[in-house]
Amino acid sequence: MRYELYYWPTVQGRGEFVRLALEEAGADYIDVGRRRGRAPIEALIARKREKHPPFAPPVLKAGRRLIAQTANILLYLGARHGLTPKDEVNRMWVHQLQLTITDLVVEIHDTHHPVTSWLYYEEQKPAAKRRTADFWKYRVPKFLGYFERILTLSGGPYLLGRRLCYVDLSLFQIVEGLRYGFPKRMKRYEKKVPRVVALHERVAKRPRIAAYLASDRRIPFSQWGIYRYFKELDG
Amino acid sequence: MRYELYYWPTVQGRGEFVRLALEEAGADYIDVGRRRGRAPIEALIARKREKHPPFAPPVLKAGRRLIAQTANILLYLGARHGLTPKDEVNRMWVHQLQLTITDLVVEIHDTHHPVTSWLYYEEQKPAAKRRTADFWKYRVPKFLGYFERILTLSGGPYLLGRRLCYVDLSLFQIVEGLRYGFPKRMKRYEKKVPRVVALHERVAKRPRIAAYLASDRRIPFSQWGIYRYFKELDG
Repeated sequence: MRYELYYWPTVQGRGEFVRLALEEAGADYIDVGRRRGRAPIEALIARKREKHPPFAPPVLKAGRRLIAQTANILLYLGARHGLTPKDEVNRMWVHQLQLTITDLVVEIHDTHHPVTSWLYYEEQKPAAKRRTADFWKYRVPKFLGYFERILTLSGGPYLLGRRLCYVDLSLFQIVEGLRYGFPKRMKRYEKKVPRVVALHERVAKRPRIAAYLASDRRIPFSQWGIYRYFKELDG
Repeated sequence: MRYELYYWPTVQGRGEFVRLALEEAGADYIDVGRRRGRAPIEALIARKREKHPPFAPPVLKAGRRLIAQTANILLYLGARHGLTPKDEVNRMWVHQLQLTITDLVVEIHDTHHPVTSWLYYEEQKPAAKRRTADFWKYRVPKFLGYFERILTLSGGPYLLGRRLCYVDLSLFQIVEGLRYGFPKRMKRYEKKVPRVVALHERVAKRPRIAAYLASDRRIPFSQWGIYRYFKELDG
């Protein structure tokens, strides 16, 4: 089956978690927004006859099914492409970890837009500074420390042990994004989470992921995504 | 099986979505935090030997399993207590809707604490006013308008049609919370989402939910939860 991924054409965003899973699976998919030059996402979401209309992208079209919500898409893909355990207990555990990634993604975005997404960053700079300081003081240690602990428990190199799951790809992407948005802060912090860093390296070297990262299918980081770089926020 | 729910003892919070499902199911459960006078949640989360340690409450203990992340807990409970369809497509659809509720909950909380949770509301009042204005201008119409649309598609009275699912209970709780936090704004807005309001009324009258709401198991709304009332934010 050829999947269709509906997502904004110019940012990695939440769609990237899905792209990484599709790439690692070697799945046949079209990145619809990028293919046609413009994103027909709004049209898809507004489609009158759709039985299960999505709220927002990313959306995966699998045959006639439309599946939305990043973690939900990964739950679906994981089971079909060997990227999650077959037994229910561990499958829900991986999903639970992914939902924690979901929570973290919101907090990363809000570092540069804490007040509202309807103001430019420049209009909310003092708030962004305060939010970012607390993010690095309290939230990064809590989130990355948690994943470090899970890696210790599992024995690594992946969150479930020797076998890669889709949530490992997402954690890789979190490290990538934090390095882009906060290069100095992240460099300092990485010493505290060696297992998370090792996981990142290991994922980056997987043949399909390495090929994807080197291809033009990988959209570069930019100032329009979840992760943005502002010198004054990087401490 | 007697479930144990681990959640903060003094707020409805995210735990309430789980409580409502347990109550509607008539499930045997202990609200651990409230029973013992203090919440042993931190101890549970820090437990060294736990194979699947949760990141944060709410946590459901089901036999020896610990399940965290509200939407994940509901996915588990729904399947076991007839609160979600049996077929995979519709089960994932209900979960997808629940994940959209999850997103909305973060945005509701952030109306009164946009800058950071480490400052009092009084220290971030201008930001809260701006965030709240955008929340009601853009986000409430988008979210509640979406659920209104789903109810139109399903034919109502519930999001999947004639059969109640756990996400209906969560949408009921969203209406309850918005009425508490923003009584004037919500009163004005409700005219635009008659099906959402009708769902709320219908859920409130279900015998087990009505009994629960009238009991002291239902923690009252307060100024410490997700939903808080500030006159100046109620426009």
